[in-house]
Amino acid sequence: MSRASSHYGLILAGGRGTRFWPRSRRSHAKQVLRFGGDRSLIQQTVDRLRPVLPPERIWILTNDHLRAEIVRQLPEVPKAQILAEPAQRNTAPAIGLAAHILQSIDANAVMGVFPADHMISKPAKYLQFVRPAFKAASAGKIVVLGIQPRWPETGYGYIEFPKGLKPGSRQPLPVRQFREKPDLKTATRYVRSGNFYWNAGMFFWKTSVLLDALREFQPKTATLLASLPAFTDRQFSSKLKHAFPNCENVSIDYAVLEKAPNVVGFATTDFGWSDVGSWNAVYELLPRDANANVFRGEALAHSSSGNYVDAERKLVALLGVKDLVIIDTPDALLIADRSRAQEVGDLVKKLEQQNRDDLL
Amino acid sequence: MSRASSHYGLILAGGRGTRFWPRSRRSHAKQVLRFGGDRSLIQQTVDRLRPVLPPERIWILTNDHLRAEIVRQLPEVPKAQILAEPAQRNTAPAIGLAAHILQSIDANAVMGVFPADHMISKPAKYLQFVRPAFKAASAGKIVVLGIQPRWPETGYGYIEFPKGLKPGSRQPLPVRQFREKPDLKTATRYVRSGNFYWNAGMFFWKTSVLLDALREFQPKTATLLASLPAFTDRQFSSKLKHAFPNCENVSIDYAVLEKAPNVVGFATTDFGWSDVGSWNAVYELLPRDANANVFRGEALAHSSSGNYVDAERKLVALLGVKDLVIIDTPDALLIADRSRAQEVGDLVKKLEQQNRDDLL
Repeated sequence: MSRASSHYGLILAGGRGTRFWPRSRRSHAKQVLRFGGDRSLIQQTVDRLRPVLPPERIWILTNDHLRAEIVRQLPEVPKAQILAEPAQRNTAPAIGLAAHILQSIDANAVMGVFPADHMISKPAKYLQFVRPAFKAASAGKIVVLGIQPRWPETGYGYIEFPKGLKPGSRQPLPVRQFREKPDLKTATRYVRSGNFYWNAGMFFWKTSVLLDALREFQPKTATLLASLPAFTDRQFSSKLKHAFPNCENVSIDYAVLEKAPNVVGFATTDFGWSDVGSWNAVYELLPRDANANVFRGEALAHSSSGNYVDAERKLVALLGVKDLVIIDTPDALLIADRSRAQEVGDLVKKLEQQNRDDLL
Repeated sequence: MSRASSHYGLILAGGRGTRFWPRSRRSHAKQVLRFGGDRSLIQQTVDRLRPVLPPERIWILTNDHLRAEIVRQLPEVPKAQILAEPAQRNTAPAIGLAAHILQSIDANAVMGVFPADHMISKPAKYLQFVRPAFKAASAGKIVVLGIQPRWPETGYGYIEFPKGLKPGSRQPLPVRQFREKPDLKTATRYVRSGNFYWNAGMFFWKTSVLLDALREFQPKTATLLASLPAFTDRQFSSKLKHAFPNCENVSIDYAVLEKAPNVVGFATTDFGWSDVGSWNAVYELLPRDANANVFRGEALAHSSSGNYVDAERKLVALLGVKDLVIIDTPDALLIADRSRAQEVGDLVKKLEQQNRDDLL
């Protein structure tokens, strides 16, 4: 069942991850960064899928800024399968494009969609859900993995399953509804209910099923993609450059999942998932010393606790400071209160307004 | 009266200023650092004395680590007058040595002693006390400048003048007593009394008077210094290397000032003196922006106030942080709570214990 002949993986790696500035840059975004191991997030994504998807079955969609670094980090993935989108157009056009290409290569293709910038600390447990997800997709279903919520997060969408479900079951459940990011009160209700799960952007389907759904719910994008020549055609790239920017800028959740009737999902149990949303999330994921500090690089701390320090090229001395995020790079240094790590993206927006391309 | 023919200046520049780590290093100590202008502290010291002491009348005592940088910074001071002490032996031997040399050059020499690492924001007002101090010294007195205390500082020694003095008088007052660093209660009493002044280490005397006092109160050191050949003698340097380490390790305050009978002083009024004791003192001395931040170099601040940032080679982004001292150098980065800037020296001690000579 594993490494089945028509299974493919699509890794979506076009994000910027500005919250990880100043480490993350346009040409060195979150997914190619290492957080505490020696493998980047995208390398870990390929690594953990290896038991079910050999690298030659992996396709990656990214952008022009990042493609070179991803090719460098993933020599095991065929270079031709690491594609730069001609424009940023959200997940529906990107996934549609990949489905279109795979369908032209293998009419029986079943694809899994995987974000490039998440962490999963228990990959074996994770694969115990990936395998039945591929199986349900092979049977014609649109499949989603739900993550058991651990707090009332307002930054994620939710999947509503039927009441009375059995968490961790390897049997797919019908999805009652997809829910957009809720407010805190609603999120709290979701978490208490027991049948609402986080939508972590992990999907499975036959490419033919996905393309049918796109034709039904996003006819414009479907028509544009259908107009493309075969992937092996010389003109593919130039035609794509013209067609892709005209695709509708919409998420696959909104374009297909919320509308399609044949959606099922798995109410998974803990496989150590994290979307690593900020430097604070990295801090929470890594082992801490006796004073709750995390040091990447050499440090000397006095009366200091709860700090995350990432400065690989120099010694960092802390004196009487608490709960800071300190990220040093050759041309930029960030010092932030850890509780405000979510706002680092706002600093990047300011730099954009100031046209500081040298720091982006 | 100014630039009188027998007036000389001795600048004591042997300190390390470890509280200014990581900017201050053994070969780049506090006195050669620039804090908000384009002149270092020792350059400012020479500059402000220029109306009363031309550079060719300035002598500087420092150490082997620092001499090269001081020679580089002060091309106007004759190189032969910038001396490295063969060992660190506190102020009495250093001042005795300078007096011995000057006396051999000019039997009528009157010397002023000036720390190299203080700031004086109103130099013209300062000189209004330096001139009468030289005059009193020429008349055979041992002279000290007292600084009107602005708070009950426990880190300085105090000079006790007679009660009922008139602050700012250009007439020398008899010194009743020198007082060692007091505890807070005593310091508070001193400040309230009105006749206790800070001892800032600025002294004036005829070299003959100082050498007489040394012979009386520190005969061992006096004898060692008297055994040296003339400064112009070829053997001076090698003889000094042997003699100097045997001098008593004692301050001029303890060795002479507290014991001599003919000590007078000036109860000066504000000439903007600061001994720049820590990064926090630098912060207090410099102009701040609307959020009370001081930036040396490029910065991007959001919800951040009261910070001192010194990072000339990169952009520093602050997010939600308060009252920090942030000093970035190529091989070390300091992040300290501003209220604890006094303890930076303790971090340096730790580095010494770890034999981190590369960072000292």
